[in-house]
Amino acid sequence: MKQLAHSTRDRILDSGLELLSASGLAGVTLGVLADRVGMSKSGLFAHFKSKEEVEMHLLIRTFEIARRQVMDAAMQAPEGLPRLEAATLAWFNWFSTAGLPGGCPVAAAMFELDDVEGMVRKRLLAEVRQWEAAMKDLAADAVARGHLRKDLDIDQFFWEIQCIYLGHHVARRFFRSPQANTQAVKAFRSLVERALPVMPKRSVQPNLKPRRK
Amino acid sequence: MKQLAHSTRDRILDSGLELLSASGLAGVTLGVLADRVGMSKSGLFAHFKSKEEVEMHLLIRTFEIARRQVMDAAMQAPEGLPRLEAATLAWFNWFSTAGLPGGCPVAAAMFELDDVEGMVRKRLLAEVRQWEAAMKDLAADAVARGHLRKDLDIDQFFWEIQCIYLGHHVARRFFRSPQANTQAVKAFRSLVERALPVMPKRSVQPNLKPRRK
Repeated sequence: MKQLAHSTRDRILDSGLELLSASGLAGVTLGVLADRVGMSKSGLFAHFKSKEEVEMHLLIRTFEIARRQVMDAAMQAPEGLPRLEAATLAWFNWFSTAGLPGGCPVAAAMFELDDVEGMVRKRLLAEVRQWEAAMKDLAADAVARGHLRKDLDIDQFFWEIQCIYLGHHVARRFFRSPQANTQAVKAFRSLVERALPVMPKRSVQPNLKPRRK
Repeated sequence: MKQLAHSTRDRILDSGLELLSASGLAGVTLGVLADRVGMSKSGLFAHFKSKEEVEMHLLIRTFEIARRQVMDAAMQAPEGLPRLEAATLAWFNWFSTAGLPGGCPVAAAMFELDDVEGMVRKRLLAEVRQWEAAMKDLAADAVARGHLRKDLDIDQFFWEIQCIYLGHHVARRFFRSPQANTQAVKAFRSLVERALPVMPKRSVQPNLKPRRK
């Protein structure tokens, strides 16, 4: 993890995030976490009241880092489609760019928490929805600027980007495939291509095809 | 005696599979599993020597069921593209068609075991590769029959189907979205559409566009 630890709480969260990235929510036990930070379990309880509270704050921190990572990359690209593309490509690899030792805690948690009710799932859902809204805003901006077609189904468009995100994650992390990035970029480019404004054929055709009435 | 041992083993695996589907590999502890089957932990050890052995056999059973589910559906469709489509659509929802209480144990395990070395990961990888080969065979058959284009990149084509599988799983299980199926089918149809043989435009155009020389 690249950032400096500001406080004990930060130090706990940084250690916890490394653990979360490598072992999932199930791997973040208070005992292991306390050991890693070099404090007692009761010392840990002074900062977080329960395993759920630790998990929730770890997911919040995950989103803070991912957001910074992805939005920093996006802001360096021109508005519209280039910005959407920069954000998406930065998103695919954000967890390794951020220096996490394992995979994306959000992707893993979406599988871990599908059947687990409670505040952690609720918070994850809210954060993911906010992420989705930000990405859809970038797509809507690309539509508004005429970079993508006016009748683009933005929900479906984002839905398919998310599919590629998950497929890339599995390809890279589980299969450890050296082609993971190439395949993800190929799939994304093909998605964008289908979303481009349709060439104005009608204004060209009359010159080629004489009307007969 | 052998028959009895076989059925107890089946009973353990059936209970384990329900547990696995709802709680992931981390949720399948020998204590909880023994309780569910109504036997002692040492009784369980008579059938499986370790947690890893239970996990491995649960994944093998998962694939047996998924394969039956998906291939049964596929075999009812004509060969070529219809069979590939039937297999893919059956795959998207196989875990609920099979009556599992939670999600797909394979999808979840691919996130759980990305950093965990050992025989369970190794076996999962082998089974997933076999699955991939079977799906790619269906795609290759659709190409051979002229249902899909000759220059189709089958690796990329299957890669994108797997993306949709994962996206659908998250949409259905984590987001609990009522649109999950519709969105997955839409994404898959669009993928297939791009894989269709290119229309032989040249042989059609001359009738529409008079040549002037």
